Amino acid sequence: MALIVQKYGGTSVGSIERINAVADRIIEYKEQGNDLVVAVSAMSGETNRLIALAEAIKPNPKGRELDVLLSTGEQVTIALLSMALETRGYPARSYTGGQVRILTDSMHNKARILNIDEDKIKSDLAKGRVVVVAGFQGVDEDGNITTLGRGGSDTTAVALAAALKADECQIYTDVDGVYTTDPRIVSKARRLEAVTYEEMLEMSSLGAKVLQIRSVEFAQKYNVPLRVLSSFQEGEGTLITSEDNIMEQVQISGITANRDEAKVTLLGVPDKPGVAVAILGPVADAGIEVDMIIQNVGADGTTDFTFTVHRNDYNQTMEILNQVKKDLNARAVEGDDKIVKVSVVGIGMRSHAGIASKMFSALSEEGINIQMISTSEIKISVVVEEKYLELSVRSLHSAFGLDEEENTVNT
Amino acid sequence: MALIVQKYGGTSVGSIERINAVADRIIEYKEQGNDLVVAVSAMSGETNRLIALAEAIKPNPKGRELDVLLSTGEQVTIALLSMALETRGYPARSYTGGQVRILTDSMHNKARILNIDEDKIKSDLAKGRVVVVAGFQGVDEDGNITTLGRGGSDTTAVALAAALKADECQIYTDVDGVYTTDPRIVSKARRLEAVTYEEMLEMSSLGAKVLQIRSVEFAQKYNVPLRVLSSFQEGEGTLITSEDNIMEQVQISGITANRDEAKVTLLGVPDKPGVAVAILGPVADAGIEVDMIIQNVGADGTTDFTFTVHRNDYNQTMEILNQVKKDLNARAVEGDDKIVKVSVVGIGMRSHAGIASKMFSALSEEGINIQMISTSEIKISVVVEEKYLELSVRSLHSAFGLDEEENTVNT
Repeated sequence: MALIVQKYGGTSVGSIERINAVADRIIEYKEQGNDLVVAVSAMSGETNRLIALAEAIKPNPKGRELDVLLSTGEQVTIALLSMALETRGYPARSYTGGQVRILTDSMHNKARILNIDEDKIKSDLAKGRVVVVAGFQGVDEDGNITTLGRGGSDTTAVALAAALKADECQIYTDVDGVYTTDPRIVSKARRLEAVTYEEMLEMSSLGAKVLQIRSVEFAQKYNVPLRVLSSFQEGEGTLITSEDNIMEQVQISGITANRDEAKVTLLGVPDKPGVAVAILGPVADAGIEVDMIIQNVGADGTTDFTFTVHRNDYNQTMEILNQVKKDLNARAVEGDDKIVKVSVVGIGMRSHAGIASKMFSALSEEGINIQMISTSEIKISVVVEEKYLELSVRSLHSAFGLDEEENTVNT
Repeated sequence: MALIVQKYGGTSVGSIERINAVADRIIEYKEQGNDLVVAVSAMSGETNRLIALAEAIKPNPKGRELDVLLSTGEQVTIALLSMALETRGYPARSYTGGQVRILTDSMHNKARILNIDEDKIKSDLAKGRVVVVAGFQGVDEDGNITTLGRGGSDTTAVALAAALKADECQIYTDVDGVYTTDPRIVSKARRLEAVTYEEMLEMSSLGAKVLQIRSVEFAQKYNVPLRVLSSFQEGEGTLITSEDNIMEQVQISGITANRDEAKVTLLGVPDKPGVAVAILGPVADAGIEVDMIIQNVGADGTTDFTFTVHRNDYNQTMEILNQVKKDLNARAVEGDDKIVKVSVVGIGMRSHAGIASKMFSALSEEGINIQMISTSEIKISVVVEEKYLELSVRSLHSAFGLDEEENTVNT
């Protein structure tokens, strides 16, 4: 007998029919002898409907009252799901964030969970009830309703699992797991049975949108085994856990691609101390986040300084650099927003040499020029021309042996 | 400077436009130097939308989870109204029933208010904030969300006014006050400036649907001055208060008509003790409520026993009486569901003789036969044929001097 926390997102509870299907799935687990705590999102479309109401009153609504408004979305779902369970003869009990209580700080619209009282939930579980908790919401110390921001329901589920010391936290989504790469790009992409928290964090931050980064960080911090599954089809999904719990560690878990970035370069900058600050200071002051940074020292005592920003910030960054160019007396500013960042991620790369050279040679064999390189302990990223996105991902997926074997495709 | 509690019903907050209009009205009162606490209902249509969702899962939904669901309706309104106030530069703060907290018993779907914590509200008022409270809802001792049942938002407003010792509780509706009779029947019906709680209770129970009986009882118990006003037009409305506060007391405040009743008679019942119980016992056992009861003693040692029930219960009551007839060896059962009850209500009737004879002679002058009569301290009701409804009401309205004077109609 295990304690399982499940989380169902907006599309999984997007209609009465789907809520009934979720109830049936919960009952399956319950019948296997498990205790169930379920965190749910608002029915798909509901949050947008509420925001539209607020925007009709006040453009760009935010703050305390927006949280009072938005939190009703999940409250509707918990009531309906509990009714669906009880109609099927399974006692259930719904809780809003405030009722649990899920204590957060007072940062409305993007609050952080500080503590979860587990007493009520444990008492309900002891009585054989399924506990249904509103995701995405909590209360601060003064009892004000707060919301956790985008992806908050995942965080609620993981926090509940941590507080209750659950055996597993299952996140139900519209995909059936974490893949070695985007199946829309590589048809031979394979579902991973397991990945480490670290790998998942790298993949999330590199653009694989299966789970919110915060919920993975949370799971890692409290060592909660996370499982990503599909609401719409059967399957084991992907387990996200610590390195110790993954028996057979592969070198590379996945290939990711991110086309949200743009590259800018300041050419012929005098090579002296403080030049990086002089360039990046004004960019940071403008609230623009910088990702990769490269500095090449030239022969003539000057240097070329290149970095990437979000594509939405490209034009503003170019304006800032043109000003910096004058101040520093640099030679020229160049920019390119037709680039992609392609990365290989794998915890195995720590202990295996030669990953980088394998990556670079795979790309070079396809005639793809590498514009920038950046590495972390479990990731290597390169910037290439945007038109090479699919080719890069496919060739790397194949080079690192991630392609699904022919004979398993149809099983 | 006064403390005013206002209540806006579903149609008054039925759209963003109307919520904005409510905000403007609140600000008017605020600008006059008043403190404002506002109780609101769900936007019109919202409660029905939520019930339809629940019914798609479970026919005839009820209990704890229905309250969790329905309470979101008012929560949406409090957030939107608070935003509308803040957008206009007036600090506001919304509270759900649980946040206030409005403590109720645990009778889900028809809970009763036990206590209201006024601390948070008073502290907000002291800071110059408008306080916006979700009507219709509360929490029980264990923190479960409860709802108060139909008309519950009126009750919330009155309970808030009582707890806060407000100077006045204003109920905004789609009519501009309490009338001497239904203006659709008598075009010369007059808005009353003031009525007593007792009169209002009689009128409510007799079918005048301006206010819920419970909220009037509550106001009377705690001596809260209630005012009924229109959300859609300017005016003083009608003040409902204690007898002491009404300067010029008229004899008769209003004429009401109720066509929801049906009349049944058991003829030729042996006139002996226990016969009333033998007749009404089976009716009560069937959950049927009896209103007027008359028993005439006949010359032959038998009696005719007549009473009225709700028209919906007419057929079932006739069936029961046909069985009782056999048991009691009575002569016959007669029934009539084409009747109306017409009543005159007025606290002045306590001290003025002759109200009854004036009433009966007014009806007789029109050739209207009176079938039953029942009286209370401040009310006389008669049952007449249904076709005489309008004629009875008009002739009584005129006989008791309630018609609006010609020269004031167009002012």
